[in-house]
Amino acid sequence: MLCYRWETRHSVAVLGLLLVLVTTGRAHSDTGDVLPSWNDGPTRTAVIDFVTAASKVGDAGYIAPEARVAVFDMDGTLMTEKPLPGAVLPLVADVKTAVARHPELKQQPGVAALLAGDLKGLQALGESGLAQIVAAAVDDRTADEVSVDMAREERAAPNPHFGQPYTKLAYRPMVELLRYLEANGFQTWICSGSPVAYTRGMSQEVFGIPPERVIGSSLQTRFGERDGKTVLTYTGKIEHVTDREGKPPVIHLAIGRRPVFVGGNVGGVGDVAMMRYAMDRGGPSFALLVNHDDAAREFAYAEKNGDSLAAATRYHFRVVSMKNDWKTVFDPSVNPRPSAP
Amino acid sequence: MLCYRWETRHSVAVLGLLLVLVTTGRAHSDTGDVLPSWNDGPTRTAVIDFVTAASKVGDAGYIAPEARVAVFDMDGTLMTEKPLPGAVLPLVADVKTAVARHPELKQQPGVAALLAGDLKGLQALGESGLAQIVAAAVDDRTADEVSVDMAREERAAPNPHFGQPYTKLAYRPMVELLRYLEANGFQTWICSGSPVAYTRGMSQEVFGIPPERVIGSSLQTRFGERDGKTVLTYTGKIEHVTDREGKPPVIHLAIGRRPVFVGGNVGGVGDVAMMRYAMDRGGPSFALLVNHDDAAREFAYAEKNGDSLAAATRYHFRVVSMKNDWKTVFDPSVNPRPSAP
Repeated sequence: MLCYRWETRHSVAVLGLLLVLVTTGRAHSDTGDVLPSWNDGPTRTAVIDFVTAASKVGDAGYIAPEARVAVFDMDGTLMTEKPLPGAVLPLVADVKTAVARHPELKQQPGVAALLAGDLKGLQALGESGLAQIVAAAVDDRTADEVSVDMAREERAAPNPHFGQPYTKLAYRPMVELLRYLEANGFQTWICSGSPVAYTRGMSQEVFGIPPERVIGSSLQTRFGERDGKTVLTYTGKIEHVTDREGKPPVIHLAIGRRPVFVGGNVGGVGDVAMMRYAMDRGGPSFALLVNHDDAAREFAYAEKNGDSLAAATRYHFRVVSMKNDWKTVFDPSVNPRPSAP
Repeated sequence: MLCYRWETRHSVAVLGLLLVLVTTGRAHSDTGDVLPSWNDGPTRTAVIDFVTAASKVGDAGYIAPEARVAVFDMDGTLMTEKPLPGAVLPLVADVKTAVARHPELKQQPGVAALLAGDLKGLQALGESGLAQIVAAAVDDRTADEVSVDMAREERAAPNPHFGQPYTKLAYRPMVELLRYLEANGFQTWICSGSPVAYTRGMSQEVFGIPPERVIGSSLQTRFGERDGKTVLTYTGKIEHVTDREGKPPVIHLAIGRRPVFVGGNVGGVGDVAMMRYAMDRGGPSFALLVNHDDAAREFAYAEKNGDSLAAATRYHFRVVSMKNDWKTVFDPSVNPRPSAP
């Protein structure tokens, strides 16, 4: 009898271990251990309720695993985009080199503003002005060279407000959200207006998202040979600017289906189209709009006409207040020291 | 003592079970249980040697997991492309409907050949002619409608030689190769000249590859509204034809790195550029060229000038003889009955 009991207890222990192994990484229940950088409140609860239902067979909110596609804007949604989007400052030296070879590049408004150090001009650029800067920076260079150089340069150029490289300025609550979605079977993607030649240099390290799940503005490359080996060379031309109404077609081309979870931010009305596109899929969906209302820890800004917040009301996006919904904004190990209070 | 022994034996059994659970789906050793539809011989051995080395830390052929990207052409590489590529015949009715609305479509050579039932004309079309047919078939329709209709139509239209839909005409040895690569940590992709609006209708069911890992020629869509809901509508315009020198730029845009394993076929010289692109990556790589030399079980055809086979010799692609390397070509459950001997 003693033998039997020992054996049984042992089996129970091992079965318990197996269960732990099998359930690790599966759905979390709504306890304090998920999304720890989010304050308790209706936003965090709504996210957890949606994700929990999506993973639960038989629930009205259940979503088949192959449909669990989550797409996020990058600048302003996953990381700081002020005073300038990340793609601008690391490229100053490359753009200067390119302009020395091709002086006509100076006529592009983005390139001209960058060379003049015209902060206001740079801030007024749309995504196509940003794409001009990146296109100039990579002009005539091979895709292999650029991917190595870009990753290094991104880690060197600090954000002028925080004195930290942009690679340190990811929003911690959003990185937690990416991991929480993945742990529940969602495939996470970035869809940014910034060109992928830039965004892919840091997507894996900063957001844990590999290059093939990063979409964005695209710069033309041409197949050819150098020293008998095949290379792709950037031609300096922009193929596609991925902003506003340009985001859903690029998402469709890359992924082939509508997202069920989508994240964007207030600031440039860049994400409303893709958020509506997800919400209209005909099934459970969730759209999360980051509102920059936190001048103390990051920045406070919005569109003058309030378009994104109006769209949130009209189309049932969930608004995230950085100030109220986020316990911390950046990773505490980063310790950003704003140069202005 | 007896107690102790029982407990120990029990633990050993459970540990064994755990090991089985942990190792299932990991690297296979070179035994008869992998690639069962391939004949033993130098081609099968070369594939297994490459994949085994790629998964083995410390081996000269080791490849980091994040670099294990495998890209395959579709028509003629993963499935039959004769007497016509799969994208042509299912679309006859849709193209007729589109031409009734937009008679000017008839002026496109692909559309004209299809409507005239001109087999030779259709066979002579390049990838851009094929893309014209698909673009006409989807013109003015929404992306959501097309993805449902296309999948249905593909399953209905038989290949005229085999009397089976193309969805049944995948090469079994190649499907086994896809699964073998995935079991060893490779990410598998399709890069086809056929438009993704067509290829994604069957990629999951036929090849086990989800839509987001299918790249190919692209047709323009435009974001808009119908009945107050957002939709993407095909404009009838072709954005990009993914063939020959057009394949590496599209692979770069979608994946962001060079493949390490690549498959193509003899017939239209469509895959040499992407195969060279993989072989030049600067690290272990493997290029597999399917040679259609099997008139009895499928077809025997090649380029008149022998360009693909010449490239295979020059750039060290491995040539697959369908006749000698493949034990079976199609799934035996399909039982294709060629209409001609």
